[in-house]
Parts: sequence; C-alpha cells; structure tokens
Amino acid sequence: MTEPSDELVASVFARDCASRSVLADVTGRWGGLALAALHEGSYRFNALRRRVDGVSEKMLAQTLQALERDGLVRRDVHATIPPRVEYSLTELGERVAAKLVELIELVEGEIGQVREAQAGYDRAR
Amino acid sequence: MTEPSDELVASVFARDCASRSVLADVTGRWGGLALAALHEGSYRFNALRRRVDGVSEKMLAQTLQALERDGLVRRDVHATIPPRVEYSLTELGERVAAKLVELIELVEGEIGQVREAQAGYDRAR
Repeated sequence: MTEPSDELVASVFARDCASRSVLADVTGRWGGLALAALHEGSYRFNALRRRVDGVSEKMLAQTLQALERDGLVRRDVHATIPPRVEYSLTELGERVAAKLVELIELVEGEIGQVREAQAGYDRAR
Repeated sequence: MTEPSDELVASVFARDCASRSVLADVTGRWGGLALAALHEGSYRFNALRRRVDGVSEKMLAQTLQALERDGLVRRDVHATIPPRVEYSLTELGERVAAKLVELIELVEGEIGQVREAQAGYDRAR
C-alpha cells in the first residue's frame, strides 16, 4: 500500500506536469544559452543576440519572453531616448542559471572525452 | 592585446563548437529525461519508455543512440533467450546526469514560484 500524499509533487517525468514545460524553457536550444549568458551579467537585446551566436531575432525574443513569463528573466525599460531595454536574471533565474552553467562547464571541460567516444562509435559502424 | 592561447577552448556560445551539440543531446526534450531516469539505475528499453512518459519508441531509440555515441550511455546486450538489452550510464554520463538532476530538482522544487510568476505575467497582458 502506498501512503496517500497530502500534496502533489512536481515531476518532470509526468508528461502533463508544469515542471516539464519549465524545464524545456530552461534547457531548450536557446533558453539554456540565454540564461547562461545572463549569468555573466545583464545584456541589451542586440548584445545578447551577438553572445548567443546563431540565434535569430525572432527566436531570441520568444525565448526571453518565455523566460520572463516563468519569472527567471527580468526586462527593464530605462526611460532614455531612445529607451534602453535591459535583460537580467531574477533571484530564481540566478539559481537556475548557476546549475545550468555547472552542467555546461562539465560538458565543455569533457568535450575531448566525448569526441573520442563519438569517433570510436563511428569507427565501429 | 589578448594573449594567444595554446589550445582552443570549448564554448557552447560558438555556433559550430562541438560542445553545443553535445549540450543539445544532454538537455534536449528527451535526452535530459532519459539521463535523469538512468541516474536512478539501469533500465531496459520498454521500462525506460514507460518512465519517460510521452516519448515515442522511435524518439527514445534515437535519443539513446545519440547519448551512446557521446559516451554518456552504455548499451549492454545480455546473451539470454530472448536477448536482454539494458541501458545504463557511463562514468561521464553519471557526472552529467548528476548535474542535470540538480537542475531538475531545483525546477521541480520551485514550480510554485514559477506558476505564480506565469499567472502574474498573464494577468498583466
């Protein structure tokens, strides 16, 4: 017998759990890179677009909007002429980005081992 | 002046860096969930497919193949009748999955705060 729990627990393994779509925002193709870039400091849109090499204007705008909606990214409009729009991480965004950056640094640091594995796999086929 | 470095360093921010495609394998829609599931222990294909709720047979097969090629997942075929195929993490896969699980647990644990942010964002529009 399973004890009934008094509240539901979030699980990314459940296809309809809200946490799965947030994880997708955070680890999606551009979401992860945008968070990792903002972990370095705040960025204006065009500077962020240059940092996240290869992203289109439209995809970056959509990505930032999803992350802002999730409460991970803050969009500040400064009343200058022309207005200056800056993106930065919220407190929760900082914590999420810090975990993500640890993962990225591990992948970057072990890329040699990964490429060897890939070469071995390809040779065997 | 910038000091010339004696070797190139991997960077996921560079669009053609190999580390970016590995990061995509690791954090892709199904790759992340497969690694997180295998962090719990080894799985046979069908059991893994049930754990990663919503994945198709074809997508899971492709996902596991990419992770095996990257040297993160090991595929063991046991010579029973019928043959038993088991998937588990390599040593590097364990380290990557551990970081990923930390990220997932953070997102699951803060899903309440994220949903509040989403509701606030939607109300303001």
